[in-house]
Amino acid sequence: MRRSQYFLPTLKENPAEAQIVSHRLMLRAGMIRQESAGIYSWLPLGFRVLQRIEQIVREEQDASGALEVLMPTIQSADLWRKSGRYDDYGAEMLRIKDRHEREMLYGPTNEEMITEMFRAGVKSYRDVPRMMYHIQWKFRDEVRPRFGVMRGREFLMKDNYSFDIDFAGAKRSYNKMFVAYLRTFARMGLKAIPMEAESGPIGGDMSHEFQILAETGESQIFCDKELLDFDVLSSGVDYDSDLQPVVDRWTSLYAATDDKHDAAKCPVPAEQLVAARGIEVGHIFYFGTKYSKPLDCVVSGANGEQVPVEMGSYGIGVSRLTGAIIEASHDDAGIIWPESVAPFKVGLINLRSGDAKCDAACTDIYGKLRKAGVEVLYDDREESAGGKFADMDLIGLPWQLIIGPRGLAAGKVELKERRTGKRDELSAEDALARLSKRAA
Amino acid sequence: MRRSQYFLPTLKENPAEAQIVSHRLMLRAGMIRQESAGIYSWLPLGFRVLQRIEQIVREEQDASGALEVLMPTIQSADLWRKSGRYDDYGAEMLRIKDRHEREMLYGPTNEEMITEMFRAGVKSYRDVPRMMYHIQWKFRDEVRPRFGVMRGREFLMKDNYSFDIDFAGAKRSYNKMFVAYLRTFARMGLKAIPMEAESGPIGGDMSHEFQILAETGESQIFCDKELLDFDVLSSGVDYDSDLQPVVDRWTSLYAATDDKHDAAKCPVPAEQLVAARGIEVGHIFYFGTKYSKPLDCVVSGANGEQVPVEMGSYGIGVSRLTGAIIEASHDDAGIIWPESVAPFKVGLINLRSGDAKCDAACTDIYGKLRKAGVEVLYDDREESAGGKFADMDLIGLPWQLIIGPRGLAAGKVELKERRTGKRDELSAEDALARLSKRAA
Repeated sequence: MRRSQYFLPTLKENPAEAQIVSHRLMLRAGMIRQESAGIYSWLPLGFRVLQRIEQIVREEQDASGALEVLMPTIQSADLWRKSGRYDDYGAEMLRIKDRHEREMLYGPTNEEMITEMFRAGVKSYRDVPRMMYHIQWKFRDEVRPRFGVMRGREFLMKDNYSFDIDFAGAKRSYNKMFVAYLRTFARMGLKAIPMEAESGPIGGDMSHEFQILAETGESQIFCDKELLDFDVLSSGVDYDSDLQPVVDRWTSLYAATDDKHDAAKCPVPAEQLVAARGIEVGHIFYFGTKYSKPLDCVVSGANGEQVPVEMGSYGIGVSRLTGAIIEASHDDAGIIWPESVAPFKVGLINLRSGDAKCDAACTDIYGKLRKAGVEVLYDDREESAGGKFADMDLIGLPWQLIIGPRGLAAGKVELKERRTGKRDELSAEDALARLSKRAA
Repeated sequence: MRRSQYFLPTLKENPAEAQIVSHRLMLRAGMIRQESAGIYSWLPLGFRVLQRIEQIVREEQDASGALEVLMPTIQSADLWRKSGRYDDYGAEMLRIKDRHEREMLYGPTNEEMITEMFRAGVKSYRDVPRMMYHIQWKFRDEVRPRFGVMRGREFLMKDNYSFDIDFAGAKRSYNKMFVAYLRTFARMGLKAIPMEAESGPIGGDMSHEFQILAETGESQIFCDKELLDFDVLSSGVDYDSDLQPVVDRWTSLYAATDDKHDAAKCPVPAEQLVAARGIEVGHIFYFGTKYSKPLDCVVSGANGEQVPVEMGSYGIGVSRLTGAIIEASHDDAGIIWPESVAPFKVGLINLRSGDAKCDAACTDIYGKLRKAGVEVLYDDREESAGGKFADMDLIGLPWQLIIGPRGLAAGKVELKERRTGKRDELSAEDALARLSKRAA
């Protein structure tokens, strides 16, 4: 993509309204635009990141055997009256009347709707287990929306729901999501720690939240140092196998949020305890028959008896992750995207746009990188070199390829790694080879 | 995907509430479920089709140079007051008050919002031309929603917006979308005819709607027979070239909807005139400065003067297309998916699930097809052969691969093409080779 044909309104100054670093950087990097309090548009650069995060979430859900569906944003109030949550939910629920004065609402979550959907489509114990998820916009009418996409009112969430015949099955489904979540966050370059959690308005008996480590995180967390070295990606996972040992390994070590941590009772010696800041990016719940009973979601068991299904729900804040990744990965100059979610892999900087040799060299390597399947943002504008450097650092692409007249005269281009700041001078061919290899 | 692990609640009977064939077939094929009047959930099979249609739309938008963004579903009423449309829009607009009694609405379209977004991000004539689109759920509170996803209240739409410095530029953008639309519909196996149209509530001076031919279509259309043979895919397209000749070729021949057609004045001789049924699936508008003026979306021209940008908007009904394709492609037994949008390419039917030889042969070819990248729905249930045949015809996968004990004894499997009903007996290896080739 040529910057001269892109829509990337970066800002030099910090917007006054942004209190946290991810909000500031997303506004400055031209990723989002606030439309109303807590409601954002995703500009081209931001949308690319959102799409990549969504795709990683989707791939790991699919790998776990979950089926993707899509439920609407607008729901009938009647459905929520059946479960008893319509009045419970309070002012956070955006309530709507349609032209016929029917009471509707903008879904903050979908337990009721998916339970009804499942009920209508199944008959017997042979129809379970099943997991079904969707990635859809939700609305929660926060009193004081703030912190950008970290606590928006309209937000994108992946919510998965599991249906099983008994607790043992439900635990298997829960474990699948537990592992899928660890893998999902690891693929985004995040260090995620599962912690026992309260169930809150979803209800239920067993629940973990996933906190990622970020210096600027919203909450204080504590965990055993060993957890930071756990690796869930390198060995792969067989979702048909018994995942309990994996879950046990992760849950056997101490990890607690501030409100659960008690220094006096903590079993981990001080030198082994990590105190860090965290951001909640996922939450999994087992809640048994809390919804299946009132909504009459039963299947016939092996002996013909009617059994309410055992359920769980599993959420990931997809739009929130965009901000959370920035909180976990930035410096004073701007964002530092992990390659897996970067909007482009390479930023190509033409130090002297308008100079025939620089233009030709840039156009050549731009074409070759694209042909090799490497996604490039080519800053071909007639701007100062300083301005281009600052913008590239701000938007945080993993690699910067810098081409100027002096280097070209010596047959060299410069390759800078955003994360380390490390710079190499090398030939255009070598740069091409290195960048193409990294894309494969 | 194994049918025994899928969620595909097919229906034998026609649902009484469905008046048109696509609605009937989508309900019977377990693609959608009605949640409220005109509001649907997309079950796994339906969601796969929706995703494929969306992806074709996206690819053709990207190819044209349009930038993808994502605007929120909930908009502020103030924005619509500025353009003067808040009161004009009437009861079809879903109006909402949030917890602070601020007036909001569920967006039925996005001209206002994107104009503001563009205004805030650009300065000069060098920042145009631009096209920006999103694929997002919209809401129009129809008095009597019906016909399934063909006229739903919550529906998925691709809307693109173009920004140019003058009419000549706007016409170039309009032409790009004109051609991109022809290509988009052609890739879905549809015959789409552009027709001059009224501008309706969007406003504007130049407008075409795209009608696809379907025997069960909602409206009567007339066109020159020659148009049906036009081909827009085989030659490719260069969006940087002058597309006016392509547009002229398509618009030089007669094409009109019922309300514009006058048999007495029609210039086409009767033997050359096609009278057919059509379904509107896309609409493109040029409307100049209708929104840029009231919303103050100006750029500085080459001489420093302030110029309101010239705009157009371009919509495709993405969820509507799911129904429209079925209207255009079905028979008495069910849906006939074009391969480009089919939820799976192949339906594998095990005629005797539980029989060791049949199971082994099916498992073997199922694994090989998946390894070859062919998407397969494997009906491994212990159901009657008749039931499996009927279900496969109903859901309309392009190819059925049928494996039973008699054929296996002779070293044969059966391959049926859904569209033609043509059946071939051949070895499993030959079937695999043919199906793999088609997927490439």
